[in-house]
Amino acid sequence: MQFTFSDRMANMNGTATREIFKLLSRPEIISFAGGLPATEALPTQAVQEIAQDVLGRDDAFRLLQYGTTEGYAPLQDEAVKLAQAFGVQLRDTSSVLILSGGQQGIDLMCKSFLNKGDVVLVEDPTYLAALQIFHSYEAVAIGVHACNEGLDTDDLEQKIQTYKPKFLYTVPTFSNPTGKTYTAENRVQIARITAKYGLPVLEDDPYARLRFSGEKVNALYSFAQEDNVVYQMSFSKILSPGLRVGAAIGNADVIRKMAVGKQGTDLHTSLPAQAVTAEYCRRGLLEPSVQKSLPLYHARKQAMMRGIERYMPAEFTHTDPDGGLFVWGAFEGTRLDTQALLHKAVARNVAYIQGNVFYADGGGANTVRLNYSNASEQKIDEGMRALGTFFKEEIAKERK
Amino acid sequence: MQFTFSDRMANMNGTATREIFKLLSRPEIISFAGGLPATEALPTQAVQEIAQDVLGRDDAFRLLQYGTTEGYAPLQDEAVKLAQAFGVQLRDTSSVLILSGGQQGIDLMCKSFLNKGDVVLVEDPTYLAALQIFHSYEAVAIGVHACNEGLDTDDLEQKIQTYKPKFLYTVPTFSNPTGKTYTAENRVQIARITAKYGLPVLEDDPYARLRFSGEKVNALYSFAQEDNVVYQMSFSKILSPGLRVGAAIGNADVIRKMAVGKQGTDLHTSLPAQAVTAEYCRRGLLEPSVQKSLPLYHARKQAMMRGIERYMPAEFTHTDPDGGLFVWGAFEGTRLDTQALLHKAVARNVAYIQGNVFYADGGGANTVRLNYSNASEQKIDEGMRALGTFFKEEIAKERK
Repeated sequence: MQFTFSDRMANMNGTATREIFKLLSRPEIISFAGGLPATEALPTQAVQEIAQDVLGRDDAFRLLQYGTTEGYAPLQDEAVKLAQAFGVQLRDTSSVLILSGGQQGIDLMCKSFLNKGDVVLVEDPTYLAALQIFHSYEAVAIGVHACNEGLDTDDLEQKIQTYKPKFLYTVPTFSNPTGKTYTAENRVQIARITAKYGLPVLEDDPYARLRFSGEKVNALYSFAQEDNVVYQMSFSKILSPGLRVGAAIGNADVIRKMAVGKQGTDLHTSLPAQAVTAEYCRRGLLEPSVQKSLPLYHARKQAMMRGIERYMPAEFTHTDPDGGLFVWGAFEGTRLDTQALLHKAVARNVAYIQGNVFYADGGGANTVRLNYSNASEQKIDEGMRALGTFFKEEIAKERK
Repeated sequence: MQFTFSDRMANMNGTATREIFKLLSRPEIISFAGGLPATEALPTQAVQEIAQDVLGRDDAFRLLQYGTTEGYAPLQDEAVKLAQAFGVQLRDTSSVLILSGGQQGIDLMCKSFLNKGDVVLVEDPTYLAALQIFHSYEAVAIGVHACNEGLDTDDLEQKIQTYKPKFLYTVPTFSNPTGKTYTAENRVQIARITAKYGLPVLEDDPYARLRFSGEKVNALYSFAQEDNVVYQMSFSKILSPGLRVGAAIGNADVIRKMAVGKQGTDLHTSLPAQAVTAEYCRRGLLEPSVQKSLPLYHARKQAMMRGIERYMPAEFTHTDPDGGLFVWGAFEGTRLDTQALLHKAVARNVAYIQGNVFYADGGGANTVRLNYSNASEQKIDEGMRALGTFFKEEIAKERK
């Protein structure tokens, strides 16, 4: 039986991310394609103990009953405390919404704001799944140019004037895919310009705690004079992605719309998952656990930098992030098509993500995103050697 | 700062359900408004023990990492086994999607099929939250008449011809809100007619296991000769709503689209919640626990029947369900407006849901939905006395 699906489904092949997950499951592959936190950093035993405790309380039955859409109050409190470390101050007590993973916040922001054909501004390149979500709302993502400091604010202002966007989506700290961080001054300018035009901003901030070098920069939210920024955090990279817990903090009107949207999908986030996350934070386990994981992430990033230095062709320019999970690079002056080449790389047991999927306009054919968080230093060396050898051969072929 | 929200938000006030949850939180209220399973039926200790076990396994770290959108394989297997009890046979191994609660399946079905302005057929009256979700897709819900056997199949066929709907949404067993169950013959006819027009069906079946009297009827899915029915189950009423776990089983193409849609919102359902649910089923705990809860539900339904008999006005006609959570009634021949009267009932510390919110066209002004699952027999008696007294007074006022 053949069915006629919705128009939005034509824009949602879901291929890129799904293929990545499939690649990851083959054990012989050294994968720089995913965005998984280090498995060694997952506090399985602590979660087990805390689950035992929260489910053993006298009122544990409450965790098995229906809860409120806005979220489990102790977790709301912990999320607010965590955000305060980046200068995020709550403007209103009803400004917090617990999410089933940070990604749900992007979906709910779209649900709250976007009609078919509406424009969202993004940094070019930006988070792949965000682009897919915008497409699912039949919206148009327009890329804002990046500069060394963050967003090109002239381009931002011009594109606000030209496209009348419904909101700006940005990952200002250890961006996915580039690993870059906007300067404080750049954030001040973004806050000023978006406020000037009354433009809402979704600040997606899952990686800020994963800083292993450089100086902390406060959230874009903290620089906003107006209440136009929704700050979104996730527990996926600092506790566990499998639990699916995140939080949005921002303008109370927007949070209320997002909550209405959430009510229409999963009603509320799994309560035992919320309670475990809240208790993990309340016991002060999060910060030490993250601190313990940082040398691991740092060492892996350094291993990737060494691998690039040793094996990659001279044409490869790349970022050198102070945190997060990703390195971004381009084969400058080449016509390499990293999408077309991916299957050949995988045949050599190494995987990356082709950079073009992170572009609103589909550019970036010669770019790649490399993840360093989920492979050992030795595997990173092996994988980069395979990748460097492969790309050198491809460049040589191109120039024959 | 004032924002312009999406058009769909104008259709989603979220008031009805949210107000219900607020009413439930006042301890002096006897609430027949909710749809909560009996708190006594929640197996808190078993969940605690199983959480301890699954998080103590050598590979427990997998539950804290990212998982696949389709769901945790052992839970997919258990969901399929549970559905088999109602004659649901898997047509394809890739026909199962784990959901973050059954309600998410309604959202994903809409995402897969509906463009703005599209029509969904529903039974009149139908599940309130489903109507809200259809509105969130700017779709139009058209009510199909009910008959004693289930759906009026002549009306169904005529409305398929007239409205060219994208799918039929139905709760054929212990319907929310009416508590009624379609006969097997009615299901055969619905399957035949929908297949004839190539119309997909979403069969929402969260209550079928909560049968305390009468004969089991197999799922609508089981009567379908064509692969046009998506069968949706939920663990909310038979294990725990707080966990947020459900499953959809059906046409592989539709399930694939739903999975792509799910990938764009919560990526996957909380893995520890999935693993606990799977292990609870694997240990054979589900069926005995449900069996144990049935006398409780039956006794509460009987208490409500006695309360109706004793206290409600003669004008009140009502259903007498064999399972599920709800009784549905109407004040025949009156002009009572149950929506307008709700706040006055609440002032007397008793709550119901006004029936009009379950109608696609907003009819049913003199109807109510009464939930019996979450109050003791004594509270049901007290509440029904208060409610009966109140409505008798209102009818007397009307006739003065």
